[in-house]
Amino acid sequence: MPRTKGDHEARRRDVSEAVWRVLVAHGFGGLTMRAVAAELDASTGLLTHYFPAKRDLVAYALDLLEQRTVSRPRPAAGEGLAALKTALMGILPLTGEATDSNRIWVSSWDTALADPGLSDDYAGKYARSRDKLRDKVEAAQEAGELPDGDPARIAAGAQAFVLGLVVQALFDPEAFPPRRQAELLDDYLDALTGTG
Amino acid sequence: MPRTKGDHEARRRDVSEAVWRVLVAHGFGGLTMRAVAAELDASTGLLTHYFPAKRDLVAYALDLLEQRTVSRPRPAAGEGLAALKTALMGILPLTGEATDSNRIWVSSWDTALADPGLSDDYAGKYARSRDKLRDKVEAAQEAGELPDGDPARIAAGAQAFVLGLVVQALFDPEAFPPRRQAELLDDYLDALTGTG
Repeated sequence: MPRTKGDHEARRRDVSEAVWRVLVAHGFGGLTMRAVAAELDASTGLLTHYFPAKRDLVAYALDLLEQRTVSRPRPAAGEGLAALKTALMGILPLTGEATDSNRIWVSSWDTALADPGLSDDYAGKYARSRDKLRDKVEAAQEAGELPDGDPARIAAGAQAFVLGLVVQALFDPEAFPPRRQAELLDDYLDALTGTG
Repeated sequence: MPRTKGDHEARRRDVSEAVWRVLVAHGFGGLTMRAVAAELDASTGLLTHYFPAKRDLVAYALDLLEQRTVSRPRPAAGEGLAALKTALMGILPLTGEATDSNRIWVSSWDTALADPGLSDDYAGKYARSRDKLRDKVEAAQEAGELPDGDPARIAAGAQAFVLGLVVQALFDPEAFPPRRQAELLDDYLDALTGTG
């Protein structure tokens, strides 16, 4: 029976799902051809059609992470300080899906820090993310919701805060359930606005 | 020539140095018997005397990281808010040594998140670190240097902030040189004290 384009795409989706499940369970440190093949219930031979070498599998996994992060639904942004808060909440592991994605991001840092090109990519990614936060800080300042001060510096602080909160929540979900994460973010924003 | 105890200890120190250098350059993802052997200019056969299996090497590396973190010299602590600031500064990658150590900590998160027992250990480590910060927050509150508020909650926020700043600085040392890190921490503490 001839393979159709639909078969091919369905198979690619299966591969993506298998790679994702391996990453959620074992991180990049556990991302091997054998683990993905086992997850797919396929032979490692079949996997080499998709990924001739381990580094192709890692590159694919990094792309998949990027795509899924970009396409993760985000709540409507609001305006001013509310938009800043929504953007920061959108980073936190408040849902199962966001937890999986964050767990894989944190895991990818080891891979990224070991590779100068990838480190530069990540630095660029975080810089763009800070720029977006900076624009929101500026809008909140213009609306009189945040006091004056270098908006880029405020954005860098806010990004540091949520990234560290992600790490804490991943290691200790009992101590950092979604409500606690939201409270801590509120504390942070209250201190920024001077209403803490 | 019989081997002496001194030989043995010198060799252990060499092994530790080699493991450390591999971790700084390649992270836990690049920690292999072969890489450590190459760094030592020894055979992988010799390495198996020290580490019968890969997991022994990883366990050794995690111990080494813990020991070197504990024994890293920390500036005198001061009192109240100054002690809190010193403790937070002591976490940041402000020196080459602290950068190496932080780079390895961040890298170890992938390994730790993939192993439930190790994840629990890490959660416990961070909880103890928050408890120490909480005591310093309390002392600063008693000295009237910080406003009222749940000291454990303030400590959790401060820990999140510095951990995220560590990650930012590792990926983008140009955007986050030591002076910038110190400024951002000052901003954070100023916002806490209400003097921002």
